[in-house]
Amino acid sequence: MAHKLEGRINALVDAYLADYSGGKDIDRVDTFDHPDRETIVAILDKLQRIVFPGFFKNRTFKVYTVRNDISMQLEDILFHLIRQLVVVLPYGETFAGLSAEELNDKAEEVAFAFLNQIPKVRAYIETDVQAAFDGDPAAFYKDEIIYTYPGLYAIFVNRIAHELYVLNVPLIPRIMTEHAHSVTGIDINPGATIGKYFFIDHGTGIVIGETTEIGDNVKVYQGVTLGALSTHGGRSLNNKKRHPTIKSNVTIYSGASILGGDTVIGENAVIGGNCFITKSIPAGAKVYIRSQELVYKYADGQGARSENLDNDGSWFYII
Amino acid sequence: MAHKLEGRINALVDAYLADYSGGKDIDRVDTFDHPDRETIVAILDKLQRIVFPGFFKNRTFKVYTVRNDISMQLEDILFHLIRQLVVVLPYGETFAGLSAEELNDKAEEVAFAFLNQIPKVRAYIETDVQAAFDGDPAAFYKDEIIYTYPGLYAIFVNRIAHELYVLNVPLIPRIMTEHAHSVTGIDINPGATIGKYFFIDHGTGIVIGETTEIGDNVKVYQGVTLGALSTHGGRSLNNKKRHPTIKSNVTIYSGASILGGDTVIGENAVIGGNCFITKSIPAGAKVYIRSQELVYKYADGQGARSENLDNDGSWFYII
Amino acid sequence: MAHKLEGRINALVDAYLADYSGGKDIDRVDTFDHPDRETIVAILDKLQRIVFPGFFKNRTFKVYTVRNDISMQLEDILFHLIRQLVVVLPYGETFAGLSAEELNDKAEEVAFAFLNQIPKVRAYIETDVQAAFDGDPAAFYKDEIIYTYPGLYAIFVNRIAHELYVLNVPLIPRIMTEHAHSVTGIDINPGATIGKYFFIDHGTGIVIGETTEIGDNVKVYQGVTLGALSTHGGRSLNNKKRHPTIKSNVTIYSGASILGGDTVIGENAVIGGNCFITKSIPAGAKVYIRSQELVYKYADGQGARSENLDNDGSWFYII
Repeated sequence: MAHKLEGRINALVDAYLADYSGGKDIDRVDTFDHPDRETIVAILDKLQRIVFPGFFKNRTFKVYTVRNDISMQLEDILFHLIRQLVVVLPYGETFAGLSAEELNDKAEEVAFAFLNQIPKVRAYIETDVQAAFDGDPAAFYKDEIIYTYPGLYAIFVNRIAHELYVLNVPLIPRIMTEHAHSVTGIDINPGATIGKYFFIDHGTGIVIGETTEIGDNVKVYQGVTLGALSTHGGRSLNNKKRHPTIKSNVTIYSGASILGGDTVIGENAVIGGNCFITKSIPAGAKVYIRSQELVYKYADGQGARSENLDNDGSWFYII
Repeated sequence: MAHKLEGRINALVDAYLADYSGGKDIDRVDTFDHPDRETIVAILDKLQRIVFPGFFKNRTFKVYTVRNDISMQLEDILFHLIRQLVVVLPYGETFAGLSAEELNDKAEEVAFAFLNQIPKVRAYIETDVQAAFDGDPAAFYKDEIIYTYPGLYAIFVNRIAHELYVLNVPLIPRIMTEHAHSVTGIDINPGATIGKYFFIDHGTGIVIGETTEIGDNVKVYQGVTLGALSTHGGRSLNNKKRHPTIKSNVTIYSGASILGGDTVIGENAVIGGNCFITKSIPAGAKVYIRSQELVYKYADGQGARSENLDNDGSWFYII
Repeated sequence: MAHKLEGRINALVDAYLADYSGGKDIDRVDTFDHPDRETIVAILDKLQRIVFPGFFKNRTFKVYTVRNDISMQLEDILFHLIRQLVVVLPYGETFAGLSAEELNDKAEEVAFAFLNQIPKVRAYIETDVQAAFDGDPAAFYKDEIIYTYPGLYAIFVNRIAHELYVLNVPLIPRIMTEHAHSVTGIDINPGATIGKYFFIDHGTGIVIGETTEIGDNVKVYQGVTLGALSTHGGRSLNNKKRHPTIKSNVTIYSGASILGGDTVIGENAVIGGNCFITKSIPAGAKVYIRSQELVYKYADGQGARSENLDNDGSWFYII
């Protein structure tokens, strides 16, 4: 005997199937393989163990020797990365029209090209840990930074994803950085190029656009946007330089926005909290908001008085 | 022989149990069934597969036919949703005083009423994907939007949760949207009503309140608040219109706040970055901050000079 | 026969191992035990069940009696917490130079000292639930707050982590609060001291620094920073009071920044949205931004007109 809900369920399934035949983009039901977010996040986890071998260890197997541990992680990364690359490479113009065998060869080539960059990535990340330790009075130990700082995690993922982006890999870099965005609230497009000793404090709400270029020793606080100016160009702006260039030794305090592809922040400049910058700033300049007129209504019965924030530039906004 | 810590453990348990008898709200230890966040998130995952049948597939079973796949997801959703509804419906005045059998019938009725809305929800989400593709120069493929954009995920969850909210379902809609908030940093109350072609870029820090109404073709960037003005009314404000109305074709750039239940942003209006709006804006208007007085201390030894940001309204703030 | 990739894999492993011998901080490959984020998050989950016994239940075992349930959770917490403490205590100066046995005894002592504080923590959290219910017109039931509000979760984790911080436990408190930061977008340093009836609404982007002190009945909205002023002191600032003091009954609306270790916000003060405060505010004062000069370009062909936001202080920014 049929379950009492069977008729209603079948009707609902019929309605859904009818809805899928409407020709919408989201109606596609081909049985192709999908890029798989969970697999890609698992690759990131294994790369984290390779980048920080003494800090994040293999949970599945216990091994005594570093060589065996690293070999195991690496082979596993290779296997899954190649499979994911075979799925995503056909999205890219660079890889169009390949046979299945050519595609697999190309995936292997890309995977090894990527994995060869890991020592370079590690050299950069070592400097990022140092920058966080030097920059944050609340950091007690470097280990605390490696284990807990969301800024370091976002930078780690960006450096990994950027190497795949440079190799013209579709989809995977963005899946990686959007995972970091979800975990940290820090949205760094994989296209962004970032120098050594990069320090992000707190980080929630940071947005760093695709064509941003960042020098060495740059510090960025929560809520900073390195973005584009709207020009209503829409899709014609693909691949244009739309985001700013930040030279070395620049500090950008929280809530500041720096916008536009022609905007260059010169070396050693300091951008104060909440500044809204749309043109270039020369090297060494300090920029801050003159005043924010605040009204104080005191409880002493003397009514409201108005006062400006007295910012003589001796301080900026941190932590 | 007792473990050496046994005495101290028992003393601690006694202390906790004594603490539970204090009559606090959080002391409640009745063994009723709980709404279960993990189950509700799993329902969202299955609904995501139904809404995007070719993109997010069943991991547990591999199936060849779309009908079998959809049937299986749907029956599983139904089973768990009905059980969760039986738990939460008694919270609502609408469903007070029902017998167990009536409650189950009501839960079935609500579940089917909800699931009948899925094709409508899909029609809206198709337009959201298109809006993101048209609006973001950093989007290479529509698939990238579907797989990675947090804004699309937040909208998907809001559209699902809103259908349950409209059916007066307690707790579950908010559990769904707070899950999306946690994953994306985008906090859209399930009560908010949102038109077609809604695009959220980056999204971290967005807050959209319960009684907000949004038309078609609206774009919202990171850090935007569509909120209420404080009136110290507290709980008396339940169910009052406290949040703004945004008409069709409006763009709201990052960091802007639009506040108040009587505030209406007219069609085709553009609200510039960081604007703080508490009254209605007529159709077609562009609103932006005149100037932010910035102080530049140059490194050339000539001391500080003051300059205004020169915003003639030819640009607004994006990405 | 070797797999065709074997040679390239071995070369890559050799390259990685060579890279590990460079003397970098992140090269450390000693096989010491690690503080384990997953274990620490699992401890938080179990503590959540102890703090809210009727709301979050054991998924692994079903039990009828509260005593058995609590005993089981507690013993499990104790076992894992002691093991994690043995790993992290040697980081701290307070615990340097202990033998393995002394270390284990110290870990037990710290674990019990911490667990004895749970009833006190529960008394505070009961008030936090009440504060959220009184303060948010969008909250329908207290259960909704307990199950879904990210602000309550962040406060719960802070109160737990703060007790470990006070006991000089290294690493674990920050691992806990960075987990809450990741889940909620709310970054409260475990050092911050927070009074009763604390309410955080929405919360994304909130930063509360290590030496912040907060009284009773304080409300804080999304995007608020309670931070430090930069003084370029770097690591010399460790343990100095760098963050503000917020007295009882203060409300701080969204986007406001209150900065500096000498800054005190007096009782009953109200800080308006987006205010940037770097000096003390007397008790009872209301502070808000006088005006933000907005430019309106209307679509009626009459060109741009400029208008100030008319804020007479009768409202502040909420939800």
